[in-house]
Amino acid sequence: MPTILGQNQYGKAENRVVKITRDGATHHIKDLNVSVALSGDMDDVHYSGSNAHVLPTDTTKNTVFAFAKEHGIESAEQFGIHLARHFVTSQEPIRTARIRIEEYAWERIATSDGNSRFIGADEVRHSFVRKGQELRTAQITYDGERWEVISGLKDLTVLNSTNSEFWGYAKDKYTTLKEAYDRILATDVSARWRYNWTDDEQRMPNWEKSYRQARTHMLEAFAETYSLSLQQTLYQMGSRIINSRSEIDEIRFSLPNNHHFLVDLEPFGLKNDTADGAVYFAADRPYGLIEATVLRDGVEPRIPVDLTNL
Amino acid sequence: MPTILGQNQYGKAENRVVKITRDGATHHIKDLNVSVALSGDMDDVHYSGSNAHVLPTDTTKNTVFAFAKEHGIESAEQFGIHLARHFVTSQEPIRTARIRIEEYAWERIATSDGNSRFIGADEVRHSFVRKGQELRTAQITYDGERWEVISGLKDLTVLNSTNSEFWGYAKDKYTTLKEAYDRILATDVSARWRYNWTDDEQRMPNWEKSYRQARTHMLEAFAETYSLSLQQTLYQMGSRIINSRSEIDEIRFSLPNNHHFLVDLEPFGLKNDTADGAVYFAADRPYGLIEATVLRDGVEPRIPVDLTNL
Amino acid sequence: MPTILGQNQYGKAENRVVKITRDGATHHIKDLNVSVALSGDMDDVHYSGSNAHVLPTDTTKNTVFAFAKEHGIESAEQFGIHLARHFVTSQEPIRTARIRIEEYAWERIATSDGNSRFIGADEVRHSFVRKGQELRTAQITYDGERWEVISGLKDLTVLNSTNSEFWGYAKDKYTTLKEAYDRILATDVSARWRYNWTDDEQRMPNWEKSYRQARTHMLEAFAETYSLSLQQTLYQMGSRIINSRSEIDEIRFSLPNNHHFLVDLEPFGLKNDTADGAVYFAADRPYGLIEATVLRDGVEPRIPVDLTNL
Amino acid sequence: MPTILGQNQYGKAENRVVKITRDGATHHIKDLNVSVALSGDMDDVHYSGSNAHVLPTDTTKNTVFAFAKEHGIESAEQFGIHLARHFVTSQEPIRTARIRIEEYAWERIATSDGNSRFIGADEVRHSFVRKGQELRTAQITYDGERWEVISGLKDLTVLNSTNSEFWGYAKDKYTTLKEAYDRILATDVSARWRYNWTDDEQRMPNWEKSYRQARTHMLEAFAETYSLSLQQTLYQMGSRIINSRSEIDEIRFSLPNNHHFLVDLEPFGLKNDTADGAVYFAADRPYGLIEATVLRDGVEPRIPVDLTNL
Repeated sequence: MPTILGQNQYGKAENRVVKITRDGATHHIKDLNVSVALSGDMDDVHYSGSNAHVLPTDTTKNTVFAFAKEHGIESAEQFGIHLARHFVTSQEPIRTARIRIEEYAWERIATSDGNSRFIGADEVRHSFVRKGQELRTAQITYDGERWEVISGLKDLTVLNSTNSEFWGYAKDKYTTLKEAYDRILATDVSARWRYNWTDDEQRMPNWEKSYRQARTHMLEAFAETYSLSLQQTLYQMGSRIINSRSEIDEIRFSLPNNHHFLVDLEPFGLKNDTADGAVYFAADRPYGLIEATVLRDGVEPRIPVDLTNL
Repeated sequence: MPTILGQNQYGKAENRVVKITRDGATHHIKDLNVSVALSGDMDDVHYSGSNAHVLPTDTTKNTVFAFAKEHGIESAEQFGIHLARHFVTSQEPIRTARIRIEEYAWERIATSDGNSRFIGADEVRHSFVRKGQELRTAQITYDGERWEVISGLKDLTVLNSTNSEFWGYAKDKYTTLKEAYDRILATDVSARWRYNWTDDEQRMPNWEKSYRQARTHMLEAFAETYSLSLQQTLYQMGSRIINSRSEIDEIRFSLPNNHHFLVDLEPFGLKNDTADGAVYFAADRPYGLIEATVLRDGVEPRIPVDLTNL
Repeated sequence: MPTILGQNQYGKAENRVVKITRDGATHHIKDLNVSVALSGDMDDVHYSGSNAHVLPTDTTKNTVFAFAKEHGIESAEQFGIHLARHFVTSQEPIRTARIRIEEYAWERIATSDGNSRFIGADEVRHSFVRKGQELRTAQITYDGERWEVISGLKDLTVLNSTNSEFWGYAKDKYTTLKEAYDRILATDVSARWRYNWTDDEQRMPNWEKSYRQARTHMLEAFAETYSLSLQQTLYQMGSRIINSRSEIDEIRFSLPNNHHFLVDLEPFGLKNDTADGAVYFAADRPYGLIEATVLRDGVEPRIPVDLTNL
Repeated sequence: MPTILGQNQYGKAENRVVKITRDGATHHIKDLNVSVALSGDMDDVHYSGSNAHVLPTDTTKNTVFAFAKEHGIESAEQFGIHLARHFVTSQEPIRTARIRIEEYAWERIATSDGNSRFIGADEVRHSFVRKGQELRTAQITYDGERWEVISGLKDLTVLNSTNSEFWGYAKDKYTTLKEAYDRILATDVSARWRYNWTDDEQRMPNWEKSYRQARTHMLEAFAETYSLSLQQTLYQMGSRIINSRSEIDEIRFSLPNNHHFLVDLEPFGLKNDTADGAVYFAADRPYGLIEATVLRDGVEPRIPVDLTNL
């Protein structure tokens, strides 16, 4: 046989599971998009179509929903750990499970007065509005011995309206860009950070707290960095997280440079500089794309270079 | 000639204009997507390709950016009024101008400490993060005599985890749905409301305040209504706005019913009812779609029935 | 009560129904996305939440799938006629039904040799590949007396690489555009045409044939028109259809002008004109947007001006 | 310094370049979306914001457009090779260049008659319609010594309406799926194949021919395989290509299982089996996701496991 099977995996992707927990009149919501990928001894199904080692993807879907009931959803990471452990330990042919989760955030609707027809407004604790466009992400991988947890977020759109410059760059015959000493810096942050926790299930990080603080550090570093290039800002965002969070060893960013071009209004007798009231054209494509990993010194990188779908 | 030209319009769509206004170290941002549609005496260009009456769409684009500088962007509605008046009054063949605007909301990044390298964090007032996934919308139409302003929003995702029932409905031979006495009610609100202001430019509504309050009333009505059908909730949302805001006469909603189905976990020996810890499958398609107009009594409806692209 | 209910409708949107019909070893596929909207005597459900007149949207979904089995899917239009008639005639409170359908086209995979392991390749008549990115659309409305059928298509992307000019246009102080004597003309055609058939169910048009020919006429008119403006091309496309198809009385187009800008390569010592080997930048936003209706002379227009979601 | 920089790259993404070549009255079109990623000695810009080694992304954009003029676009792969070689050999700090290209296919509009107003229809050879929804992809990587070319396609939607079964699978307590002996098999093919050509620029593969034949082999294998699992079909598609094309050593697929569920019509007294006229619900989410690499025996795999964005 001149061809052979290489790396392979399968499972049910994008299981949209919502769990409502009631604490008296106060409800809590967890809203996840869970994808399961299993790999192991799967030669037969590829070579001959024998499914004897194949747990149906439909079963992996059922497991996601059943586990949401049985184990609850304390955090995306903890939920993924439950699922990954189950698949690897319960099905002999499965050697590795990788669970990817997107989490949608909600916040409570604040009601201000008491003219609800049915119940008093201060008792209305079951109403929610979607918060932000960003998604929280988690990827949990387990091979029966060690865990790898990579958390992150995507589509967190940020903008500095000043404190950004770009000049002193290399030039060649195709360079026409003018230097900029006061520009808008805007991006949609995609970030994935890897925890150094790998095995002791009694000593897991506090996933929820760690996420909130990593996000805050990232935003603060973005806001506080006087930027000479988006690369510099990226590095500040990454090193701020690693220096502040001992449980995180590595972080990778994919940052589009959302260009905002000062519009040339001179043909209309208008001066349009950045001093005040500047008008920009927000461009779609093309866009700069800056990607890099920041590591704790001495650590081996493990986050894939292409993290778009992580 | 056996065919004739009917209603027609043209212009530049989706001009992405961002304006930064500086108040010392504090910056303000307006971020709009502006579409211009002009109509008037345009027979020649359709019949023969003569462009003598056609102001190029490129010119309408330039006008949007120039007006952002010259007139500022006080609100989406006010900006649209400036543009519509200009096109109708400055170009003889143009009889009507319709300006559609989407506005993206931003909020400030709050920085908590002072270890910024360049400037003190409490002076950092130029950093923003995109707020929410919803878009604010405005449509301004002017025919040289009267104004029509329709404001609104879309993609405002809300969810009640209880206080929703659905039963007592009509049944026919294709009905299999079971009655529900405690269900999730979730939707992505698309709403457009029409102002009764039409001509006195000295007595315009306060567009920004009106928008904020209409949005709040809508959210509160959604949260406070004990719902026997999404139609009932829709009507409560609309009548709350019209009863509270005298400047608004009409509102139209398009509300998908974002179905959340209780998962059947009985095959796995698990009871999954709504009492506590209920697990739902959030479905994509198909979805219920509920659309209706709510009017101040005695007023003629003018908002088109299909408001998707409004 | 100071507010009243205006126009309203409800139903299940985006029912994705696929039907496979077997003719021996040759299979046929129909792949539709069907949306139902019903209106009638629905005051109670809006005012009080009483659902007695409400046939559940779940039932409308079941009806779509059951009718695909019972009546087959001869064409999107015929299928919509079956559904609309059913809802209006079987449920007393329902006065009007509007069925919207998108159809996805498939073509057969042509296999060239005989080394199939199981059956001879020339017998393989059950394999399909999606054809094109365009969607065929149909909207059928019935009020118990008369029918309105509006068919169309969207996302049909076309491009002429020459035979397009744009000059002689109106100018004002914001005009900077240079005249073009040889440009690319490209658009994504959205078109909706209305049939003059309204009541005699024995004398319906041949929907499939009419669609194919309308599409061909549109493409030919686009290709053969030497264009002085996109408006002129639009009118040629519309009048060609109406002049050629007696069953069609009205057509409305929404045509974005997909700008292709000649790139300025002079800074690099390169001449980039249209004579040969011209290089263009295909822009996303903003884009010109040209919309118009073409009518058979003497006919009243009935297609809504905003057809995006039609 | 407790943090260090890991792998990094930058460049301009999604440059939309269209080139029209004229051969008398016959025009040819190439329509590409080109993304450039450069890496090398970039520590300074990340650590301190010094841009001395940074060729601006704007320059990489200019280069793409200028090269389209200077070198033409013989094929996506050849164009990427020109670009990658240029960046690595002309800028000392740049060690590796990776060019990713998406290609949009067009076909000619066939005109059937001679009633064009300006030129004879048989001379109209400059009119095009977008062909298919699938995209052709190419990734070219060069480190100054060796080339890696990975070509592919995505969003090629295919469906077999029979000759697919799924049974004999592993079962656990969460398994409820019923075995299927005649089902629809449908997927959106994402495939990336790696060429074994690495260095001799005089002996490149014929990229256009190789692409066409790889695509044909894939489609034929999909159509001709009697499938006991999507994994089996995947392997047949991959091995068919490698066995038929000596220039290709490795191929990776990502195949969603686009579920088509037989609708239960028994509540309505209708039998809905696959014998004839079966009605299916085409589901969106969740979906099975099958991913695997097929290799020429003895070859090392080099295509990344996550190929979504490749």
